[in-house]
Amino acid sequence: MAYRYEIRLSGSGGQGLILMGIILAEAIGIYDGKYVAQTQSYGPEARGGSSKSEVIVSDEEIDYPKAIRLDLLLAMNQRSCDEFYGNLKPEGVLIVDSTFVTQVPTVRVYEIPFTQIAREKFKRDVVANIVALGVLSQLSPIVSAKGVEAALMARVPKGTEKLNLDALKAGITDARRAKKEWKEAQMPPDIPSEDLPDSD
Amino acid sequence: MAYRYEIRLSGSGGQGLILMGIILAEAIGIYDGKYVAQTQSYGPEARGGSSKSEVIVSDEEIDYPKAIRLDLLLAMNQRSCDEFYGNLKPEGVLIVDSTFVTQVPTVRVYEIPFTQIAREKFKRDVVANIVALGVLSQLSPIVSAKGVEAALMARVPKGTEKLNLDALKAGITDARRAKKEWKEAQMPPDIPSEDLPDSD
Repeated sequence: MAYRYEIRLSGSGGQGLILMGIILAEAIGIYDGKYVAQTQSYGPEARGGSSKSEVIVSDEEIDYPKAIRLDLLLAMNQRSCDEFYGNLKPEGVLIVDSTFVTQVPTVRVYEIPFTQIAREKFKRDVVANIVALGVLSQLSPIVSAKGVEAALMARVPKGTEKLNLDALKAGITDARRAKKEWKEAQMPPDIPSEDLPDSD
Repeated sequence: MAYRYEIRLSGSGGQGLILMGIILAEAIGIYDGKYVAQTQSYGPEARGGSSKSEVIVSDEEIDYPKAIRLDLLLAMNQRSCDEFYGNLKPEGVLIVDSTFVTQVPTVRVYEIPFTQIAREKFKRDVVANIVALGVLSQLSPIVSAKGVEAALMARVPKGTEKLNLDALKAGITDARRAKKEWKEAQMPPDIPSEDLPDSD
Protein backbone atom coordinates (compact mmCIF):
# COMPACT_ATOMS: atom_id res chain seq x y z
CA MET A 1 0.00 0.00 0.00
CA ALA A 2 1.48 3.31 -1.10
CA TYR A 3 1.91 6.05 1.43
CA ARG A 4 1.38 9.73 0.84
CA TYR A 5 2.80 12.45 3.09
CA GLU A 6 1.71 16.06 2.66
CA ILE A 7 3.56 19.17 3.84
CA ARG A 8 2.36 22.76 3.52
CA LEU A 9 4.70 25.68 4.25
CA SER A 10 2.74 28.90 4.68
CA GLY A 11 3.24 32.50 5.71
CA SER A 12 4.01 35.83 4.10
CA GLY A 13 5.73 36.61 0.82
CA GLY A 14 9.38 37.32 1.56
CA GLN A 15 9.70 34.66 4.27
CA GLY A 16 11.43 32.33 1.82
CA LEU A 17 8.81 29.59 1.80
CA ILE A 18 9.28 28.73 -1.86
CA LEU A 19 13.03 28.22 -1.54
CA MET A 20 12.26 26.16 1.56
CA GLY A 21 9.85 23.98 -0.42
CA ILE A 22 12.41 23.44 -3.16
CA ILE A 23 15.22 22.52 -0.77
CA LEU A 24 12.90 20.16 1.10
CA ALA A 25 11.74 18.56 -2.15
CA GLU A 26 15.30 18.13 -3.41
CA ALA A 27 16.40 16.72 -0.06
CA ILE A 28 13.63 14.13 -0.12
CA GLY A 29 13.53 13.51 -3.88
CA ILE A 30 17.17 13.59 -4.92
CA TYR A 31 19.05 12.79 -1.71
CA ASP A 32 16.57 10.54 0.09
CA GLY A 33 15.30 8.95 -3.12
CA LYS A 34 11.52 9.18 -2.76
CA TYR A 35 8.91 10.47 -5.20
CA VAL A 36 8.22 14.14 -4.53
CA ALA A 37 5.98 16.77 -6.10
CA GLN A 38 6.53 20.35 -5.05
CA THR A 39 4.01 23.06 -5.89
CA GLN A 40 3.31 26.72 -5.33
CA SER A 41 0.08 28.39 -6.26
CA TYR A 42 -0.49 32.05 -6.99
CA GLY A 43 -3.83 33.78 -6.97
CA PRO A 44 -5.43 36.77 -5.30
CA GLU A 45 -3.87 35.75 -1.97
CA ALA A 46 -0.36 36.03 -3.46
CA ARG A 47 -1.08 39.59 -4.47
CA GLY A 48 -2.29 40.12 -0.89
CA GLY A 49 1.15 39.12 0.36
CA SER A 50 0.48 35.51 1.40
CA SER A 51 2.76 32.70 0.31
CA LYS A 52 2.32 28.95 0.28
CA SER A 53 4.48 26.07 -0.86
CA GLU A 54 3.57 22.38 -0.79
CA VAL A 55 5.60 19.19 -0.80
CA ILE A 56 3.97 15.81 -1.42
CA VAL A 57 5.99 12.65 -0.80
CA SER A 58 5.20 9.10 -1.84
CA ASP A 59 6.86 5.80 -2.59
CA GLU A 60 5.24 5.79 -6.01
CA GLU A 61 4.61 8.32 -8.77
CA ILE A 62 2.37 11.16 -7.61
CA ASP A 63 -0.71 11.69 -9.75
CA TYR A 64 -2.27 14.49 -7.77
CA PRO A 65 0.40 16.94 -6.58
CA LYS A 66 -1.77 19.23 -4.46
CA ALA A 67 -2.12 18.82 -0.71
CA ILE A 68 -5.52 17.65 0.49
CA ARG A 69 -5.11 16.61 4.12
CA LEU A 70 -1.87 17.73 5.68
CA ASP A 71 0.56 15.62 7.68
CA LEU A 72 2.62 18.66 8.51
CA LEU A 73 1.70 22.33 8.52
CA LEU A 74 4.29 25.04 9.02
CA ALA A 75 2.66 28.42 9.67
CA MET A 76 5.02 31.39 9.68
CA ASN A 77 2.30 33.97 10.35
CA GLN A 78 -1.03 34.16 12.20
CA ARG A 79 -3.17 34.35 9.11
CA SER A 80 -1.80 31.17 7.57
CA CYS A 81 -2.16 29.35 10.89
CA ASP A 82 -5.81 30.38 11.12
CA GLU A 83 -6.51 29.59 7.50
CA PHE A 84 -4.86 26.20 7.13
CA TYR A 85 -5.15 24.53 10.52
CA GLY A 86 -8.44 22.98 9.41
CA ASN A 87 -6.60 21.09 6.64
CA LEU A 88 -4.33 19.30 9.11
CA LYS A 89 -5.06 15.61 9.80
CA PRO A 90 -5.97 14.88 13.42
CA GLU A 91 -2.62 13.10 13.77
CA GLY A 92 -0.76 15.78 11.79
CA VAL A 93 1.96 18.02 13.19
CA LEU A 94 1.55 21.78 13.49
CA ILE A 95 4.69 23.94 13.72
CA VAL A 96 4.43 27.70 14.06
CA ASP A 97 6.84 30.60 14.09
CA SER A 98 5.97 31.91 17.53
CA THR A 99 7.59 35.23 16.64
CA PHE A 100 4.41 35.98 14.70
CA VAL A 101 1.85 33.33 15.66
CA THR A 102 0.60 34.26 19.10
CA GLN A 103 -2.76 32.46 19.09
CA VAL A 104 -2.53 28.74 18.45
CA PRO A 105 -5.64 26.67 17.75
CA THR A 106 -4.50 23.59 19.67
CA VAL A 107 -2.13 22.49 22.42
CA ARG A 108 -0.70 19.93 20.01
CA VAL A 109 1.72 22.36 18.46
CA TYR A 110 5.43 23.10 18.31
CA GLU A 111 5.90 26.81 18.91
CA ILE A 112 9.38 27.83 17.80
CA PRO A 113 10.49 31.45 17.30
CA PHE A 114 12.25 30.95 13.95
CA THR A 115 12.51 34.60 13.09
CA GLN A 116 13.62 35.60 16.57
CA ILE A 117 16.32 32.92 16.48
CA ALA A 118 17.45 34.16 13.06
CA ARG A 119 17.52 37.73 14.30
CA GLU A 120 19.28 37.11 17.59
CA LYS A 121 21.80 34.51 16.49
CA PHE A 122 22.55 35.74 12.98
CA LYS A 123 21.20 39.30 12.84
CA ARG A 124 19.40 38.17 9.67
CA ASP A 125 15.62 37.66 9.75
CA VAL A 126 16.00 36.26 6.27
CA VAL A 127 17.47 32.94 7.45
CA ALA A 128 14.35 32.15 9.51
CA ASN A 129 13.35 29.76 6.71
CA ILE A 130 16.64 27.88 7.03
CA VAL A 131 16.22 27.65 10.81
CA ALA A 132 12.77 26.22 10.06
CA LEU A 133 14.30 23.67 7.66
CA GLY A 134 16.50 22.45 10.49
CA VAL A 135 13.44 22.12 12.71
CA LEU A 136 11.50 20.19 10.06
CA SER A 137 14.38 17.77 9.61
CA GLN A 138 13.87 16.79 13.25
CA LEU A 139 10.09 16.96 13.57
CA SER A 140 9.11 15.19 10.36
CA PRO A 141 9.95 11.51 9.83
CA ILE A 142 9.98 12.04 6.06
CA VAL A 143 13.14 14.08 5.70
CA SER A 144 16.67 13.48 6.93
CA ALA A 145 18.94 16.19 8.32
CA LYS A 146 21.66 14.85 6.02
CA GLY A 147 19.47 15.20 2.93
CA VAL A 148 18.43 18.73 3.90
CA GLU A 149 22.02 19.77 4.47
CA ALA A 150 23.11 18.42 1.08
CA ALA A 151 20.20 20.05 -0.75
CA LEU A 152 20.75 23.33 1.09
CA MET A 153 24.44 23.46 0.21
CA ALA A 154 23.59 22.82 -3.46
CA ARG A 155 21.10 25.72 -3.54
CA VAL A 156 22.49 28.62 -1.53
CA PRO A 157 24.51 31.41 -3.17
CA LYS A 158 28.29 31.10 -2.98
CA GLY A 159 29.70 32.82 0.07
CA THR A 160 26.60 32.19 2.22
CA GLU A 161 27.28 28.52 2.96
CA LYS A 162 28.44 29.03 6.53
CA LEU A 163 25.59 31.33 7.50
CA ASN A 164 23.06 28.89 6.08
CA LEU A 165 24.67 25.86 7.66
CA ASP A 166 24.76 27.58 11.03
CA ALA A 167 21.10 28.56 10.68
CA LEU A 168 20.21 24.96 9.82
CA LYS A 169 22.08 23.71 12.86
CA ALA A 170 20.39 26.28 15.10
CA GLY A 171 17.05 24.89 13.94
CA ILE A 172 18.12 21.30 14.57
CA THR A 173 19.26 22.19 18.07
CA ASP A 174 16.09 24.05 18.90
CA ALA A 175 13.87 21.27 17.56
CA ARG A 176 15.67 18.79 19.81
CA ARG A 177 15.03 21.06 22.77
CA ALA A 178 11.36 21.38 21.80
CA LYS A 179 10.98 17.61 21.44
CA LYS A 180 12.58 17.04 24.80
CA GLU A 181 10.18 19.49 26.39
CA TRP A 182 7.24 17.68 24.83
CA LYS A 183 8.55 14.38 26.15
CA GLU A 184 8.95 15.77 29.60
CA ALA A 185 5.50 17.26 29.49
CA GLN A 186 4.23 13.74 28.60
CA MET A 187 2.19 15.17 25.78
CA PRO A 188 4.20 14.11 22.78
CA PRO A 189 2.80 14.69 19.31
CA ASP A 190 2.78 11.76 16.94
CA ILE A 191 6.40 11.61 15.95
CA PRO A 192 7.57 8.09 15.18
CA SER A 193 9.74 6.99 18.07
CA GLU A 194 12.68 6.11 15.85
CA ASP A 195 12.88 9.74 14.89
CA LEU A 196 13.26 10.89 18.48
CA PRO A 197 16.78 11.66 19.60
CA ASP A 198 18.35 9.30 22.10
CA SER A 199 19.89 12.11 24.06
CA ASP A 200 20.76 15.73 23.73
CA MET B 1 -15.35 29.42 -20.35
CA ALA B 2 -12.14 29.20 -18.34
CA TYR B 3 -8.87 28.85 -20.18
CA ARG B 4 -5.92 26.73 -19.16
CA TYR B 5 -2.40 27.24 -20.49
CA GLU B 6 0.31 24.69 -19.75
CA ILE B 7 4.08 25.22 -19.88
CA ARG B 8 6.77 22.60 -19.30
CA LEU B 9 10.41 23.59 -18.87
CA SER B 10 12.67 20.58 -19.28
CA GLY B 11 16.32 19.69 -19.50
CA SER B 12 19.17 18.71 -17.22
CA GLY B 13 19.66 19.35 -13.52
CA GLY B 14 21.84 22.43 -13.15
CA GLN B 15 20.28 24.29 -16.11
CA GLY B 16 18.21 26.38 -13.69
CA LEU B 17 14.79 25.20 -14.82
CA ILE B 18 13.26 25.35 -11.35
CA LEU B 19 14.27 28.96 -10.76
CA MET B 20 12.94 29.66 -14.23
CA GLY B 21 9.60 28.11 -13.38
CA ILE B 22 9.35 30.14 -10.19
CA ILE B 23 10.18 33.43 -11.87
CA LEU B 24 7.72 32.68 -14.64
CA ALA B 25 5.01 31.76 -12.12
CA GLU B 26 5.62 34.88 -10.06
CA ALA B 27 5.62 37.04 -13.18
CA ILE B 28 2.27 35.65 -14.30
CA GLY B 29 0.71 35.18 -10.86
CA ILE B 30 1.86 38.20 -8.91
CA TYR B 31 2.67 40.76 -11.59
CA ASP B 32 0.21 39.83 -14.33
CA GLY B 33 -2.54 38.80 -11.90
CA LYS B 34 -3.60 35.39 -13.17
CA TYR B 35 -4.04 32.10 -11.32
CA VAL B 36 -0.87 30.04 -11.52
CA ALA B 37 0.27 26.68 -10.19
CA GLN B 38 3.96 25.86 -10.43
CA THR B 39 5.21 22.34 -9.85
CA GLN B 40 8.36 20.29 -9.94
CA SER B 41 8.45 16.56 -9.59
CA TYR B 42 11.31 14.41 -8.41
CA GLY B 43 11.62 10.71 -9.02
CA PRO B 44 14.12 8.31 -10.53
CA GLU B 45 14.64 10.70 -13.48
CA ALA B 46 15.80 13.47 -11.11
CA ARG B 47 18.44 11.14 -9.75
CA GLY B 48 19.37 10.43 -13.37
CA GLY B 49 20.08 14.13 -13.87
CA SER B 50 16.88 15.22 -15.63
CA SER B 51 14.94 18.25 -14.44
CA LYS B 52 11.42 19.43 -15.18
CA SER B 53 9.36 22.35 -14.01
CA GLU B 54 5.74 23.09 -14.92
CA VAL B 55 3.64 26.24 -14.90
CA ILE B 56 -0.15 26.09 -15.32
CA VAL B 57 -2.04 29.34 -15.89
CA SER B 58 -5.77 29.93 -15.71
CA ASP B 59 -8.31 32.68 -15.09
CA GLU B 60 -9.80 30.64 -12.29
CA GLU B 61 -8.47 28.54 -9.42
CA ILE B 62 -6.46 25.56 -10.64
CA ASP B 63 -7.69 22.23 -9.33
CA TYR B 64 -5.26 20.00 -11.14
CA PRO B 65 -1.78 21.57 -11.18
CA LYS B 66 0.01 19.03 -13.36
CA ALA B 67 0.49 19.53 -17.08
CA ILE B 68 -1.52 17.21 -19.30
CA ARG B 69 -1.35 18.65 -22.84
CA LEU B 70 1.25 21.32 -23.29
CA ASP B 71 0.78 24.72 -24.91
CA LEU B 72 4.48 25.44 -24.64
CA LEU B 73 7.42 23.08 -24.28
CA LEU B 74 10.91 24.33 -23.63
CA ALA B 75 13.49 21.59 -24.12
CA MET B 76 17.01 22.43 -23.01
CA ASN B 77 18.49 19.05 -23.94
CA GLN B 78 17.91 16.35 -26.54
CA ARG B 79 16.49 13.82 -24.14
CA SER B 80 13.73 16.10 -22.85
CA CYS B 81 12.84 17.12 -26.39
CA ASP B 82 12.48 13.48 -27.41
CA GLU B 83 10.60 12.55 -24.27
CA PHE B 84 8.07 15.37 -24.05
CA TYR B 85 7.35 16.40 -27.63
CA GLY B 86 4.46 13.95 -27.70
CA ASN B 87 2.76 15.88 -24.89
CA LEU B 88 2.62 19.08 -26.93
CA LYS B 89 -0.77 20.09 -28.41
CA PRO B 90 -0.82 20.26 -32.22
CA GLU B 91 -1.07 24.05 -31.95
CA GLY B 92 1.51 24.20 -29.12
CA VAL B 93 4.87 25.94 -29.36
CA LEU B 94 8.17 24.05 -29.14
CA ILE B 95 11.30 25.98 -28.19
CA VAL B 96 14.64 24.22 -27.96
CA ASP B 97 18.13 25.16 -26.86
CA SER B 98 19.85 24.46 -30.16
CA THR B 99 23.18 24.34 -28.35
CA PHE B 100 22.18 20.85 -27.21
CA VAL B 101 19.12 19.86 -29.23
CA THR B 102 20.36 18.95 -32.67
CA GLN B 103 17.53 16.71 -33.82
CA VAL B 104 14.12 18.35 -33.79
CA PRO B 105 10.95 16.32 -34.27
CA THR B 106 9.12 18.97 -36.31
CA VAL B 107 9.72 22.00 -38.50
CA ARG B 108 7.35 23.97 -36.25
CA VAL B 109 10.03 24.83 -33.72
CA TYR B 110 11.99 27.80 -32.48
CA GLU B 111 15.64 26.76 -32.30
CA ILE B 112 17.54 29.23 -30.17
CA PRO B 113 21.05 28.62 -28.81
CA PHE B 114 20.39 29.81 -25.26
CA THR B 115 23.53 28.34 -23.78
CA GLN B 116 25.72 29.52 -26.63
CA ILE B 117 24.33 33.06 -26.26
CA ALA B 118 24.95 32.94 -22.51
CA ARG B 119 28.47 31.72 -23.08
CA GLU B 120 29.43 34.13 -25.86
CA LYS B 121 27.75 37.28 -24.58
CA PHE B 122 28.22 36.82 -20.83
CA LYS B 123 30.85 34.10 -20.47
CA ARG B 124 28.40 32.40 -18.15
CA ASP B 125 26.53 29.28 -19.28
CA VAL B 126 24.54 29.59 -16.09
CA VAL B 127 22.41 32.48 -17.38
CA ALA B 128 21.09 30.42 -20.29
CA ASN B 129 17.88 30.03 -18.30
CA ILE B 130 17.50 33.80 -18.04
CA VAL B 131 18.11 34.19 -21.77
CA ALA B 132 15.37 31.58 -22.22
CA LEU B 133 13.03 33.58 -19.93
CA GLY B 134 13.49 36.55 -22.22
CA VAL B 135 12.63 34.38 -25.20
CA LEU B 136 9.51 32.98 -23.52
CA SER B 137 8.28 36.47 -22.72
CA GLN B 138 8.17 37.09 -26.50
CA LEU B 139 7.01 33.72 -27.78
CA SER B 140 4.24 33.01 -25.27
CA PRO B 141 1.13 35.20 -25.14
CA ILE B 142 0.64 34.34 -21.48
CA VAL B 143 3.54 36.25 -19.94
CA SER B 144 4.63 39.87 -20.29
CA ALA B 145 8.25 41.01 -20.55
CA LYS B 146 7.48 43.59 -17.86
CA GLY B 147 6.18 40.94 -15.46
CA VAL B 148 9.19 38.69 -16.07
CA GLU B 149 11.60 41.55 -15.49
CA ALA B 150 9.93 42.51 -12.20
CA ALA B 151 9.83 38.90 -10.98
CA LEU B 152 13.44 38.33 -12.04
CA MET B 153 14.71 41.41 -10.20
CA ALA B 154 12.86 40.29 -7.06
CA ARG B 155 14.51 36.83 -7.16
CA VAL B 156 18.14 37.21 -8.22
CA PRO B 157 20.93 37.58 -5.65
CA LYS B 158 22.08 41.10 -4.91
CA GLY B 159 24.94 42.17 -7.16
CA THR B 160 23.79 40.03 -10.10
CA GLU B 161 20.96 42.30 -11.24
CA LYS B 162 22.77 43.75 -14.24
CA LEU B 163 24.01 40.42 -15.53
CA ASN B 164 20.52 38.93 -15.25
CA LEU B 165 18.81 41.91 -16.83
CA ASP B 166 21.26 41.86 -19.73
CA ALA B 167 20.69 38.13 -20.20
CA LEU B 168 16.92 38.70 -20.21
CA LYS B 169 17.28 41.41 -22.82
CA ALA B 170 19.53 39.23 -24.97
CA GLY B 171 16.74 36.64 -24.95
CA ILE B 172 14.10 39.21 -25.85
CA THR B 173 16.21 40.47 -28.75
CA ASP B 174 16.90 37.02 -30.07
CA ALA B 175 13.25 35.99 -29.85
CA ARG B 176 12.22 39.06 -31.84
CA ARG B 177 14.75 38.13 -34.50
CA ALA B 178 13.45 34.56 -34.54
CA LYS B 179 9.84 35.72 -34.84
CA LYS B 180 10.70 38.05 -37.66
CA GLU B 181 12.45 35.26 -39.52
CA TRP B 182 9.42 33.05 -39.15
CA LYS B 183 7.25 35.75 -40.59
CA GLU B 184 9.58 36.47 -43.49
CA ALA B 185 10.03 32.86 -44.38
CA GLN B 186 6.30 32.22 -43.93
CA MET B 187 7.66 28.91 -42.89
CA PRO B 188 9.60 27.66 -39.92
CA PRO B 189 13.25 28.70 -40.08
CA ASP B 190 15.81 26.01 -40.42
CA ILE B 191 18.93 28.15 -40.37
CA PRO B 192 21.95 27.02 -38.36
CA SER B 193 22.22 29.42 -35.47
CA GLU B 194 25.82 30.35 -36.19
CA ASP B 195 24.76 31.84 -39.54
CA LEU B 196 22.30 34.23 -37.91
CA PRO B 197 23.04 37.95 -38.13
CA ASP B 198 23.76 39.88 -34.96
CA SER B 199 20.94 42.01 -33.69
CA ASP B 200 20.81 44.59 -30.96
